[in-house]
Amino acid sequence: MKLPQFYVDDIIERALKEDINYLDVSSDYLLPEDQRNEAYFVAKADGVLCGLDVALRTFELLDDSFSAKIYKHDGEKIAAGDVIAEFSGKTVLLLKGERTALNLLQHMSGIATATARAVELVRGTNAQITDTRKTLPGMRALQKYAVVCGGGKNHRFNLSDGAMLKDNHIDAGGGIAKTVAALRGKLGHMVKIEVETRDLDEVHEAVQAGADIIMLDNMPNDEMREAVQIIGGRAKTEASGGITLENLAEVAKTGVDIISLGALTHSVHAFDISMKMKK
Amino acid sequence: MKLPQFYVDDIIERALKEDINYLDVSSDYLLPEDQRNEAYFVAKADGVLCGLDVALRTFELLDDSFSAKIYKHDGEKIAAGDVIAEFSGKTVLLLKGERTALNLLQHMSGIATATARAVELVRGTNAQITDTRKTLPGMRALQKYAVVCGGGKNHRFNLSDGAMLKDNHIDAGGGIAKTVAALRGKLGHMVKIEVETRDLDEVHEAVQAGADIIMLDNMPNDEMREAVQIIGGRAKTEASGGITLENLAEVAKTGVDIISLGALTHSVHAFDISMKMKK
Amino acid sequence: MKLPQFYVDDIIERALKEDINYLDVSSDYLLPEDQRNEAYFVAKADGVLCGLDVALRTFELLDDSFSAKIYKHDGEKIAAGDVIAEFSGKTVLLLKGERTALNLLQHMSGIATATARAVELVRGTNAQITDTRKTLPGMRALQKYAVVCGGGKNHRFNLSDGAMLKDNHIDAGGGIAKTVAALRGKLGHMVKIEVETRDLDEVHEAVQAGADIIMLDNMPNDEMREAVQIIGGRAKTEASGGITLENLAEVAKTGVDIISLGALTHSVHAFDISMKMKK
Amino acid sequence: MKLPQFYVDDIIERALKEDINYLDVSSDYLLPEDQRNEAYFVAKADGVLCGLDVALRTFELLDDSFSAKIYKHDGEKIAAGDVIAEFSGKTVLLLKGERTALNLLQHMSGIATATARAVELVRGTNAQITDTRKTLPGMRALQKYAVVCGGGKNHRFNLSDGAMLKDNHIDAGGGIAKTVAALRGKLGHMVKIEVETRDLDEVHEAVQAGADIIMLDNMPNDEMREAVQIIGGRAKTEASGGITLENLAEVAKTGVDIISLGALTHSVHAFDISMKMKK
Amino acid sequence: MKLPQFYVDDIIERALKEDINYLDVSSDYLLPEDQRNEAYFVAKADGVLCGLDVALRTFELLDDSFSAKIYKHDGEKIAAGDVIAEFSGKTVLLLKGERTALNLLQHMSGIATATARAVELVRGTNAQITDTRKTLPGMRALQKYAVVCGGGKNHRFNLSDGAMLKDNHIDAGGGIAKTVAALRGKLGHMVKIEVETRDLDEVHEAVQAGADIIMLDNMPNDEMREAVQIIGGRAKTEASGGITLENLAEVAKTGVDIISLGALTHSVHAFDISMKMKK
Amino acid sequence: MKLPQFYVDDIIERALKEDINYLDVSSDYLLPEDQRNEAYFVAKADGVLCGLDVALRTFELLDDSFSAKIYKHDGEKIAAGDVIAEFSGKTVLLLKGERTALNLLQHMSGIATATARAVELVRGTNAQITDTRKTLPGMRALQKYAVVCGGGKNHRFNLSDGAMLKDNHIDAGGGIAKTVAALRGKLGHMVKIEVETRDLDEVHEAVQAGADIIMLDNMPNDEMREAVQIIGGRAKTEASGGITLENLAEVAKTGVDIISLGALTHSVHAFDISMKMKK
Repeated sequence: MKLPQFYVDDIIERALKEDINYLDVSSDYLLPEDQRNEAYFVAKADGVLCGLDVALRTFELLDDSFSAKIYKHDGEKIAAGDVIAEFSGKTVLLLKGERTALNLLQHMSGIATATARAVELVRGTNAQITDTRKTLPGMRALQKYAVVCGGGKNHRFNLSDGAMLKDNHIDAGGGIAKTVAALRGKLGHMVKIEVETRDLDEVHEAVQAGADIIMLDNMPNDEMREAVQIIGGRAKTEASGGITLENLAEVAKTGVDIISLGALTHSVHAFDISMKMKK
Repeated sequence: MKLPQFYVDDIIERALKEDINYLDVSSDYLLPEDQRNEAYFVAKADGVLCGLDVALRTFELLDDSFSAKIYKHDGEKIAAGDVIAEFSGKTVLLLKGERTALNLLQHMSGIATATARAVELVRGTNAQITDTRKTLPGMRALQKYAVVCGGGKNHRFNLSDGAMLKDNHIDAGGGIAKTVAALRGKLGHMVKIEVETRDLDEVHEAVQAGADIIMLDNMPNDEMREAVQIIGGRAKTEASGGITLENLAEVAKTGVDIISLGALTHSVHAFDISMKMKK
Repeated sequence: MKLPQFYVDDIIERALKEDINYLDVSSDYLLPEDQRNEAYFVAKADGVLCGLDVALRTFELLDDSFSAKIYKHDGEKIAAGDVIAEFSGKTVLLLKGERTALNLLQHMSGIATATARAVELVRGTNAQITDTRKTLPGMRALQKYAVVCGGGKNHRFNLSDGAMLKDNHIDAGGGIAKTVAALRGKLGHMVKIEVETRDLDEVHEAVQAGADIIMLDNMPNDEMREAVQIIGGRAKTEASGGITLENLAEVAKTGVDIISLGALTHSVHAFDISMKMKK
Repeated sequence: MKLPQFYVDDIIERALKEDINYLDVSSDYLLPEDQRNEAYFVAKADGVLCGLDVALRTFELLDDSFSAKIYKHDGEKIAAGDVIAEFSGKTVLLLKGERTALNLLQHMSGIATATARAVELVRGTNAQITDTRKTLPGMRALQKYAVVCGGGKNHRFNLSDGAMLKDNHIDAGGGIAKTVAALRGKLGHMVKIEVETRDLDEVHEAVQAGADIIMLDNMPNDEMREAVQIIGGRAKTEASGGITLENLAEVAKTGVDIISLGALTHSVHAFDISMKMKK
Repeated sequence: MKLPQFYVDDIIERALKEDINYLDVSSDYLLPEDQRNEAYFVAKADGVLCGLDVALRTFELLDDSFSAKIYKHDGEKIAAGDVIAEFSGKTVLLLKGERTALNLLQHMSGIATATARAVELVRGTNAQITDTRKTLPGMRALQKYAVVCGGGKNHRFNLSDGAMLKDNHIDAGGGIAKTVAALRGKLGHMVKIEVETRDLDEVHEAVQAGADIIMLDNMPNDEMREAVQIIGGRAKTEASGGITLENLAEVAKTGVDIISLGALTHSVHAFDISMKMKK
Repeated sequence: MKLPQFYVDDIIERALKEDINYLDVSSDYLLPEDQRNEAYFVAKADGVLCGLDVALRTFELLDDSFSAKIYKHDGEKIAAGDVIAEFSGKTVLLLKGERTALNLLQHMSGIATATARAVELVRGTNAQITDTRKTLPGMRALQKYAVVCGGGKNHRFNLSDGAMLKDNHIDAGGGIAKTVAALRGKLGHMVKIEVETRDLDEVHEAVQAGADIIMLDNMPNDEMREAVQIIGGRAKTEASGGITLENLAEVAKTGVDIISLGALTHSVHAFDISMKMKK
């Protein structure tokens, strides 16, 4: 599983332009252009690696002579002290790329690691962990890829590829049943319909309406458990709202199929990875 | 203080393209194009607002008829329950812009709020809080602006506008003194030189070399206190490495001038703001 | 239903740059800059309008003083001689925008008109007409929007938002059943799985595997009819391959749910609309 | 004759982004990343090849390990069953690039084939076949290149590089003679002037005015023949408007120098080429 | 005559991003956001104005409230002390835009002024002054527009819209006559052929070959005069190479039709215009 | 010292698109695609080389088979007749890239050469030569790099990375002292403050205020000399305004630290370098 090269290159180049502008006044003025160095990435904590291809690509875009040996791959578990990859390139260009490479690698590994933790917490239940559209501008693809690396699943990518019915839609459509039916008549056959519900009455309506997925929005666990019973497999169920690592396991035990966590992408804790130069 | 419009527009448009693609299959198929709605942003926690212009601009770019009343401005404190702005626009376009606007607003307010907390923790000391280059791709300008909104200062923006000497530079340059001198001979007069030091010997050398700023890298507080004494105002001092909200106050008491915190931008906790539709 | 403004603007600006470069050497050298003209779009054939907003936007991007009265909207039927919109602007700018506006309007109306014809041909059957990914570079969103304007449905937009299993996948996965199961374990809950089948054995397998949609690839009508029977509503059925306006009605009578037509977007016949200047 | 690489790359990347987004959920989840495959392009009809470099470049941009053997070149005739090129690459990346490569190859070969047919129909006459500005947004360069591959000629590329005088210009300029003279005084020496005429009086005027090319706009063939006589080689003559493959040969016999056909680029019929995987 | 808005906006935005980045640390930190100022452009020398629309547009892109009164237009003569335009806007935004606006205005007016001087020097002769492709990256359209504002003409814009035969082409083509004939058989009817000649033999050949324009490359004036005689109006003649303001008048007297001057665009002297704030 | 590859590539590609569009109608129609040629750059004057990497990169972007031998490097002195680099590539692609490569090389070498001349004129004094923000749109990085190649220093790159206080700031801030203090309280620690002064009173105030650099704006040499005395090393001094190569040496003798010259980048004289084809 690999992100398309040109897609990644755009993001890296934008980041490099921000970070370098035209010269690295420390390195360009002081270091011989042809000096080479060996370096490596080392994990400073335990987690799941993500973004290594992206990080190494950063150096490739700066340095034609760059080469790397890869020891860990995206999606693999890493432990503090693990050497992730060793590489060789021009010293000036290693220094120019270092911050951009690490920013990407730490962000993506942070997402994968948090996702893996959430997945672990729901192990043994029916629930799968998914992301949301609460992502950072320009980073959605990388963030959603990182969720997958961490063992999570992706919710819809954008407003075009999945339908989600909220209050405004249902009010305008004249109730859940009529709205779902009206929309079904217009949607392409590859698009599913999810309906947001806030109480058991709405859950009943959504089942009747034939929703593909029923979101249980900010419901107490007991109510969610009852909703899952009511639905009885006739639609997928998604728990959403106010779910944290603390209460995640309890939510999963309600029997919901999907638990979506905005924090996976909107509140990322960078995963600590260092780049060390070998002198 | 305002970010340039066209700069912001680029980021918003990239975000909107990710989030909408070509249609909102829920709203475009169900809601009358001309239906209008009132809506507002409301804070769900206490903190510092940032990104309101950016968030409102999101709707402007989608909807010529959009208008807003602004109650809180970037950099102001907000409390849970505060209405930040009220606005009016086409329902379909409010729904299309909502996620992008909130993603930006919550991220930027998250940074400003965390920065304000750090600033508060060092109040009464000499220390000022600054950011680093540990930012997210394409977001550096918005993130650094948010740090300022939170009462922090900005470290260098990129590798061109400030010099930072590390091991590799100093080894290649033949020691701190020779390296600083060599670089001073090449730098423009607007650029300062910061030298990374890891022990008091290096601190001594850096002072002698005439560094503008001396970074005390991962030093224990006692050592940092001593370094500040040694330097005696002949250079600015920056504490860096391993500093968290927990130990920040103690670090500040060492007398350092600057404390830089990567977490302000690399590990942002989204600040909770909701957008409510008035029916 | 409306395409996002900034999305459309990108396409128009790219087109205008191709078509104008820096000056219109005929108009810029000969016409007074402030001369204004009235003009209108008139249909030269019967069909379905699509792209009017896009076409008018072309002039708006060139001319702040441009204004229009709209008589027909995207998705409406138009007949030869119908005036679609009347507008007023600077003569030079009307001439500069004319070709780009018409190129877009004729292309999009061509797609909508062809789609409407196909939809008409299957009226009374179960079949809905959809597009494919056989689109023109940079034009997919506009083309898929035009299919919707013509009464068709959209197939998946891209390789990320819908799964389609072909030979290569099924061979690598060890048969249809194992492949569908493996994929289901990885896909997000909003994504459907379609399986390509080439004979009734594969159809049987695909049904057993729980495919959401079964594509009947290049099957004779009799075989398709039998496949529909076999499937018996347990999956949606899609007829694909070798379908033209000539045999479309017969295909629809087999009872398939979906008929996808690449020609709607890969072999577009421009719909004839003229722009007339009122002197 | 080759399009510039970076020009082509832009178009391909835009197309790939539309078509892939971030993952191919079928292939990325199911196929081993390193699995390789042989594949080839095979013609399904008789025509003229165009776009092969562009199509193969699509795979190169995705896959560093891609290599190809080319049997047919742009501009060559191909017959149904001809193998155009054989190539080898990673299976996942061949599948990711397939649709984009074919969309470009079929579109460009469609234009070249239609152009060649038109050129064949006027063989033995004086007439040369040219395109128009009726092209698709972002595709003008590729489309005009395809016309050349088919044996046609290119009309002006944009409004800056050739002058074309219409009603509005001539009215504003005070008649054909005065307008041509005024424009000649302003144009650079590399730019030609073409004048649109609708009757023989205008043809007389245009000749007197010294137009480089005289367009005979929607004239009956007899009138065109007379116009050609009147002009007597003092200007090039271009037949335009309402010309189809059916009446093309007759138009050519009027003796006109140029016949411009909008349909070559605005109503392209995709040329059928398949990509086959060798198992 | 006006450059397209979106074309100009791209250049301005690129320039503003270079010049502002995210904050103006002088103005954003010190000036009240709403403070307004009047300001004006005043000429500090005599010349020809060009780029005023572009310069004022710079402020419009930054400041919705910006308004201007225009006293001089592109292409008009201006004298030292002339007020060119007065305008009003937010002080911070006037300061942010000032450098970018002036950089564009001074560069374009510099070109127009130098062109006007050259045109003046050849007054009374047959010669017209043209530019070349010796332009600055990204600035060709603005530079060629400025040449027109100064009274000059534009040579071909790019390698696609005019043919120029050099040694390499003629050697490969088997001499001037065969090369011109071969090319004529391939070129579209809107494209002219210019042939570079370095002695009178080549001039003879080029005339025979039917070249549209014959370039007299680095010829002494006497030889040029003879060449003009030989050609006798059968082709346009262009003097090129080593021509300066000093020898321009003499070159013009040889009777050549066109004198092309690379220095107009490759060695621009910025025209001095100041922006003054009214306190 | 090297500009980042992707940064340079963007500029080159923009330039190539302007200069080539889709075909080189001279070369593409006449020369065999595989014909190769040797060529070289030769200096036609004495100066300092700059932009060679950029120029050679132009051909690399067009031609995978391009290779070069480099005899002179950026920043080295070159004399008329010196061969700078020899290279080999496809003839068509050498011809397509020639103009773009030379435009960049001549512009950048022109800046480096003019800078070197200015540096030479102040040799033996304290003064260093710097550039300004008077650069050309999209070219600032390349221009500032060229100034460094010529032995000059770079002034601030943009409004974010250095503070410069003018009238408007000082008036709004309530005098120099209060303004500098206010700004110091807000600026990051890497940013210096420069204050513009127009007389000795202001110089006194600026020194007291603790300005890092004091600009002596358009002062007579005597006054500047006195200002330097007054300042006595407490701040850097910058002479600015009305300085030319003629009066530069005298200005330098006043003892100022920095002399900034807008003409280095706003009024560039292209340095003459030819590209010769070896037949």
